[in-house]
Amino acid sequence: MAGRFITFEGGEGSGKSTQARLLAAFLKNRGEDVVLTREPGGTDGAEAIRSLLVTGAAERWTAWGEACLMNAARAEHVARIVRPALARGATVICDRYVDSTRAYQGAGKGLADADLCALHAMTSGGLWPDLTIVLQVSPEQGLARAGARGGAEARFESHDRAFHERVAAFFAGLPAAEPTRCHGFDADQPVETLAAAIAAVAG
Amino acid sequence: MAGRFITFEGGEGSGKSTQARLLAAFLKNRGEDVVLTREPGGTDGAEAIRSLLVTGAAERWTAWGEACLMNAARAEHVARIVRPALARGATVICDRYVDSTRAYQGAGKGLADADLCALHAMTSGGLWPDLTIVLQVSPEQGLARAGARGGAEARFESHDRAFHERVAAFFAGLPAAEPTRCHGFDADQPVETLAAAIAAVAG
Repeated sequence: MAGRFITFEGGEGSGKSTQARLLAAFLKNRGEDVVLTREPGGTDGAEAIRSLLVTGAAERWTAWGEACLMNAARAEHVARIVRPALARGATVICDRYVDSTRAYQGAGKGLADADLCALHAMTSGGLWPDLTIVLQVSPEQGLARAGARGGAEARFESHDRAFHERVAAFFAGLPAAEPTRCHGFDADQPVETLAAAIAAVAG
Repeated sequence: MAGRFITFEGGEGSGKSTQARLLAAFLKNRGEDVVLTREPGGTDGAEAIRSLLVTGAAERWTAWGEACLMNAARAEHVARIVRPALARGATVICDRYVDSTRAYQGAGKGLADADLCALHAMTSGGLWPDLTIVLQVSPEQGLARAGARGGAEARFESHDRAFHERVAAFFAGLPAAEPTRCHGFDADQPVETLAAAIAAVAG
């Protein structure tokens, strides 16, 4: 793979999507070939899977059902979008990736991290990011922000507080657990200040 | 598990659905608590996944995307329908199950059987049938029957002939490979004759 694969991770309302867009704009301004994408989604098939995942009641899916749907969407996205872009030398910036599955279906819903990593190795050929930006926000703040934003994709937001605490704890521990790949940032700072700090690491 | 789990497997147009219904009727007549179900499907969520899998162009999904969608549907179906029914002592008869994933995404699309079995162990807690009825039909005959039947769920039928030959070869070899669990039957015989032969094994 000639290109560079950067992912943004964090809980609801952590500002991932905004920061992913700002980093993409920064790197494009510099002349890089940048592909900005998201998970679950990024292809027609994966967006159809996304709609099954992000709408409806919290208990709509079992933990393994959800993990398999996430991996189905990821397999499509990696094979059809991410790998071809990396192969031509592009920088791929993705809003959520495998660490979200580890956080939500793993830490949040009790699936073993080793199983989820084994599943990822199978279904996406073990493609890990070169760099992962982890945005940290308390569930209180994040859910308040996400709620203010509104929108139809509220299934995960509707999970209980204890679930969001476990997800936040996973993201809080990730930069120390995988320091070569993952860099943590406090999401509770002005958007442009945070964007500059991320650009300093990712640029 | 107090109940008994019986699956029907075979290529397109092998008569699985008809024979599953006839066996269910036979066992019900005898007073058994019988749950007749199918995969992919059997719950609201899994039926929504089914519609993604069985409609559209052959190349709509990658092999791993398809395998993950099948496992997502199976995880839902096993957790919500199959295990509860077996726990109360029912006989569950299912039209397609994990062997179809091994045949279609494994033999047909090149995924390793060991990977698919490992995936099944994770996502459905390794629930294997007590008895599997394998109906064998040549792709020529089966596709002709399935084509005559018509219907909107023709995505797999639209795959090329070589694919269907690999699927048929998997099903042809399954009874010898796993003789304790799997019993093979020539599907090219009168419906009632075949039903009686299956009842003699499954009754």
